Amino acid sequence: MAHGSGGRLSHELVDKCFLRFFRNPILDKLGDSATFELGRRLAFTTDSYVVTPLFFPGGDIGKLAVCGTVNDLAMSGAVPLYLSASFIIEEGLAISELQRIAASMKAAADEAGMTVVAGDTKVVNRGSADKLFITTTGVGVIASGVDISPDNAGPGDTVILSGTIGDHGITILSQREGLSFSTDLRSDCAPLHQLVAEMLQESHRINCLRDPTRGGLATSLNEIAEQSGVSIEIEEELIPVRDEVRGACELLGLDPLHVANEGKLIAIVEEDVAEKILERMKKHRYGERAAIIGRVGTGPRGRVVMKTPFGSRRILDMPSGELLPRIC
Amino acid sequence: MAHGSGGRLSHELVDKCFLRFFRNPILDKLGDSATFELGRRLAFTTDSYVVTPLFFPGGDIGKLAVCGTVNDLAMSGAVPLYLSASFIIEEGLAISELQRIAASMKAAADEAGMTVVAGDTKVVNRGSADKLFITTTGVGVIASGVDISPDNAGPGDTVILSGTIGDHGITILSQREGLSFSTDLRSDCAPLHQLVAEMLQESHRINCLRDPTRGGLATSLNEIAEQSGVSIEIEEELIPVRDEVRGACELLGLDPLHVANEGKLIAIVEEDVAEKILERMKKHRYGERAAIIGRVGTGPRGRVVMKTPFGSRRILDMPSGELLPRIC
Repeated sequence: MAHGSGGRLSHELVDKCFLRFFRNPILDKLGDSATFELGRRLAFTTDSYVVTPLFFPGGDIGKLAVCGTVNDLAMSGAVPLYLSASFIIEEGLAISELQRIAASMKAAADEAGMTVVAGDTKVVNRGSADKLFITTTGVGVIASGVDISPDNAGPGDTVILSGTIGDHGITILSQREGLSFSTDLRSDCAPLHQLVAEMLQESHRINCLRDPTRGGLATSLNEIAEQSGVSIEIEEELIPVRDEVRGACELLGLDPLHVANEGKLIAIVEEDVAEKILERMKKHRYGERAAIIGRVGTGPRGRVVMKTPFGSRRILDMPSGELLPRIC
Repeated sequence: MAHGSGGRLSHELVDKCFLRFFRNPILDKLGDSATFELGRRLAFTTDSYVVTPLFFPGGDIGKLAVCGTVNDLAMSGAVPLYLSASFIIEEGLAISELQRIAASMKAAADEAGMTVVAGDTKVVNRGSADKLFITTTGVGVIASGVDISPDNAGPGDTVILSGTIGDHGITILSQREGLSFSTDLRSDCAPLHQLVAEMLQESHRINCLRDPTRGGLATSLNEIAEQSGVSIEIEEELIPVRDEVRGACELLGLDPLHVANEGKLIAIVEEDVAEKILERMKKHRYGERAAIIGRVGTGPRGRVVMKTPFGSRRILDMPSGELLPRIC
């Protein structure tokens, strides 16, 4: 199970089972989307969704699948255009639930300006899957002058986080295991393409974008630091966390920095445009609580350090075990 | 389960759960790939693979997933280029099996000239999936002058089938349920892009291409007849079927025309280029047993009729129940 956590073991699995065989310059970038030139500069991304329960406060598996793909395209600075959706359905799933999920996907695709152009449906025997899995794949177009990639962070760059962390993961967790600690909490599941478009209107000097989903903020920062060959230093006090999320994490022994988000982004931008971009983000509904949380440094490659409110520093690693299975 | 058969009920499911919500001119064509203009004319297709067992004579789930996507692109006349692969893994699947499958995918992608540029991995608890499901999505480029679409068949066109039918479905079936009637039979799983490229070198007057996978030859012919608004008449005697497949089908009460193929295509071509295209196909390793099996007529829209060896005619419908679950 820990191989699916998004953390250290997931990276190992991908290395030894997939990258080892498929290695090529496009894949090796390990961006949220692959990007390549084909008449125009395109972004291409795929993800499977296995979240349980299928419906949760703030969304459902369908909205999650569409927003996840929209966001992976947006993290390359691409305008989302075309979407495919493939459904693996367990025998016995109610048609009405499938319709409700499809309607939700349509609404999310409309909000993102995406057209669903291809799909597939497989039905497996009862017990061979758990209700429904959805795989979405998206194609988008990257405007000229945009150069956003996880290996583009440079020393001195500013790290911006678009809002509170942990909302999605804790919402899903609260729906399972009979927990009821977070009555008002909702998943932050949302399409971020418009927020990114506005940030790019402000400045093209955005070097990396990443949505901290499975594995949380800590994992995404580690990935950027590793791929860009830099260190990153953040300050714990500057990271927005809702009280309900903080409380639930304390209760359960989780670190909010390891918990999944589905409507947040990390932006690594050049220092002198950071304030301007931050102000623009705060005006957007999905960036109201955006904050500068740290900066890129020249320390050892891949090292992410967090300064605590007490002034001490600790290394912020990826989670190494399984925290919350099937949160996305 | 019958909703996953590829036949009548699958079409109903797609209509009432998906098309109803997602309807748009690109999706409505219901081709093996979606096609759209984005700098160049692109083809885009996705499929999930849930075949069991994971390994079978002639292939495995990985080869099947890559060839399936290659073939869907090829059925739009596209040159396959970029591939994504998303894995849903059941806790406990051996790493060695996953590596064997990834190696097989790499070999199949290489044969097709495709680069794997994006992927995802999810792990679910034991019992929440059955070993491994793979979803592949492909992007290809369509050359100018190529206009292949399931709604392009016209009266008088010739129907060509690229080889024997039922090999894949019967091979998978023989691996399950303790059946052992078909010792030498192998899945026909193969990438057809090169065969299509050679056919297009011979002539661009190829109107439709379709690979008769789930639901078999009968389903694909019905889909073409429906979407092109034509009737199709085929002759049973002209359809190549291996003796082992025929025998197994008789034993099990199956119709070979309903059984899945993974390395065959149906081509609807203009009458005066049919012989020339057929000769070219026969020279290709994946088209050696190609044959003209019928023609497009002006009968009622969507009607497929088969002339039996005894001279009688019967309407060839899609299968309406579930024949063979999880054959692809």
